[in-house]
Amino acid sequence: MHPLHTETAGGALRPLIRRATPQDLPRVVELFASPDGNTRDQAPTAELEPCYAEAFAAIADDPNNTLVVAEVEGEVVGAFQLTIIAYVAYRGGRVAQIEAVFVDAAMRGRGVGEAMMRWAIDEARRRRCFRVQLTTNKARTRAHALYARLGFVATHEGMKLMLERPGRHSE
Amino acid sequence: MHPLHTETAGGALRPLIRRATPQDLPRVVELFASPDGNTRDQAPTAELEPCYAEAFAAIADDPNNTLVVAEVEGEVVGAFQLTIIAYVAYRGGRVAQIEAVFVDAAMRGRGVGEAMMRWAIDEARRRRCFRVQLTTNKARTRAHALYARLGFVATHEGMKLMLERPGRHSE
Repeated sequence: MHPLHTETAGGALRPLIRRATPQDLPRVVELFASPDGNTRDQAPTAELEPCYAEAFAAIADDPNNTLVVAEVEGEVVGAFQLTIIAYVAYRGGRVAQIEAVFVDAAMRGRGVGEAMMRWAIDEARRRRCFRVQLTTNKARTRAHALYARLGFVATHEGMKLMLERPGRHSE
Repeated sequence: MHPLHTETAGGALRPLIRRATPQDLPRVVELFASPDGNTRDQAPTAELEPCYAEAFAAIADDPNNTLVVAEVEGEVVGAFQLTIIAYVAYRGGRVAQIEAVFVDAAMRGRGVGEAMMRWAIDEARRRRCFRVQLTTNKARTRAHALYARLGFVATHEGMKLMLERPGRHSE
């Protein structure tokens, strides 16, 4: 439970959804590294490691890979990544995949995640994808309810195999 | 149940796993369109539609997207696609995603799928990915057992939202 969520629930926000810029990176990494985020990203107080700017530059050159942010009153409060995957199967169909969805704990339950997902679905249609897909941790039942409301169906098991962390990032 | 599977189970094959070439496409599409495959791909008797060669050419130029085949005694008996996704999150980590796994119904239970998945995991390590991931239909319990044996854990729900089929492929 997030105390701030309880405090703010009910007041729907109208976030601006847009592609991230390099200037967004410090704040975006802060979201990645939040206590209920993942443990692979760095703590928000440290100076930003070069790996983030390098990763951002790499996907900035890739038309099929986009980091997207949600902004409310000039502050980034959410982020996700959208990747377009071109298949040979499905008659050379394209799929839009949503990954790494983060919303500021203080802003949850106010429509930020939904606005981001609707942007992703619209972008998938623009890119003529035949499917949008994501995997969501089985423990995140509130997220499941949002995705189901948007029309996603949990037809598949999402299976992951962790490999060792890349050398340059090892501890 | 596939009668041929019952007939051949037990005799492990040693398939050659390799990147597909344009010459493989007719046979690969035949696998895609098999009765228990998907319904989006064309029936195997028709002449191959240009969408397949176009899709193959598009991913041939993309170092992060590979169509892979399994070959036994000169014949393609399996195929899958491997996509490397670069994140900004996870310290700019990379994930290897396995999609569109097909094995000839007559060759199942003989190690073709396992050989393909081991190739994918090795390739993911070579590409310094920190994770390999896939989604698998909840009905495919035999596939789940294979993935679990290889170390995959079903931590996530795999959720899909179908969009309309792209116009040029509509029926």
